[in-house]
Amino acid sequence: MPTPIKTAQPDYPILDCIAQRYSPYNFEPRPIEHDHLLRCLEAARWAASSFNEQPWRFVLVTRDHTDAWSAALACLMQANQTWAQNAGALIFTLARNTFTRNDKPNRVAIHDIGLAIGNFCAQATALGLHAHQMAGIEIETIRQTYAVSAGFEPVTAIALGYAGDTEPDDKPRSRNALSEWVFADRFGQAHPITS
Amino acid sequence: MPTPIKTAQPDYPILDCIAQRYSPYNFEPRPIEHDHLLRCLEAARWAASSFNEQPWRFVLVTRDHTDAWSAALACLMQANQTWAQNAGALIFTLARNTFTRNDKPNRVAIHDIGLAIGNFCAQATALGLHAHQMAGIEIETIRQTYAVSAGFEPVTAIALGYAGDTEPDDKPRSRNALSEWVFADRFGQAHPITS
Repeated sequence: MPTPIKTAQPDYPILDCIAQRYSPYNFEPRPIEHDHLLRCLEAARWAASSFNEQPWRFVLVTRDHTDAWSAALACLMQANQTWAQNAGALIFTLARNTFTRNDKPNRVAIHDIGLAIGNFCAQATALGLHAHQMAGIEIETIRQTYAVSAGFEPVTAIALGYAGDTEPDDKPRSRNALSEWVFADRFGQAHPITS
Repeated sequence: MPTPIKTAQPDYPILDCIAQRYSPYNFEPRPIEHDHLLRCLEAARWAASSFNEQPWRFVLVTRDHTDAWSAALACLMQANQTWAQNAGALIFTLARNTFTRNDKPNRVAIHDIGLAIGNFCAQATALGLHAHQMAGIEIETIRQTYAVSAGFEPVTAIALGYAGDTEPDDKPRSRNALSEWVFADRFGQAHPITS
């Protein structure tokens, strides 16, 4: 497992593959074993989705392909390019907006991308990798660079790789208390289980 | 771990907490230990989110609260009520549509709910529980029943509980091959790593 500089401090025991996940800014510029990439993708593959639609599509670019790597970096907002260039792989996630079975809108398509990426991140963490997800992407550049078909929507980019031993920001990670967002009976009313 | 009647048949090794997850229709009608509920919620809590917004809000209802349980079931589409009534808990997920810091739209809010629920499901599976997620919910009924604040959107419901030894549907689980959705260079072009 990586140096736990950013390991969560959970209030209740949780899986290591969840507690040890964080979003590094400091990646070591080295490639990722293909076996590891495949296992992360396979974990995403087995996520749940509405009507088993599996609305997820990925574009995967590895740092060893120099031209493709530059083109992929250009699909990120400028501020993300600086640190993401050291990752081992970049993945662009895209969602199919409609159901294959009836062409009706899939209200939860991008939610289900999140489910797949939740799995992806857990598997990556278990393999000693880290994923840094970005909403800060150039959506039109992605559409053009990869000739994205109509009916598919770029959602996020993910920088995947081996994290360094240090982080530019060494603030401890923080999360809202359960009582702030787990409600009973009425929205905003903390569930008694959280007290 | 639960009876692996629906365990995934992955092509590459993945974590047990991902491979053993499935969405049961057959729940044993018994309560869930509070400690287990808290650990699933805590796992959700440590998900990544854009700008650490943590846009997730949950309404949690346990089956031991009879009146609340009936009201919660009425928030599901009819076809889901039949099997979900045997779950140990129902959770309604809701998303904050805007960023707290600037009130601008959060394009990835429901994606980030998916990340949190990915963690939730992995932790649940590791504890011998199963989660069956539903997009088939009565959105307006949820809004009214729980007095959901403006700016928050019901996303899914989750039935959580202990799965029985059998399932009405014993078909093996299936997923698209990686080559159908992991692309290189151009959308639709299978990445060589998947072949």
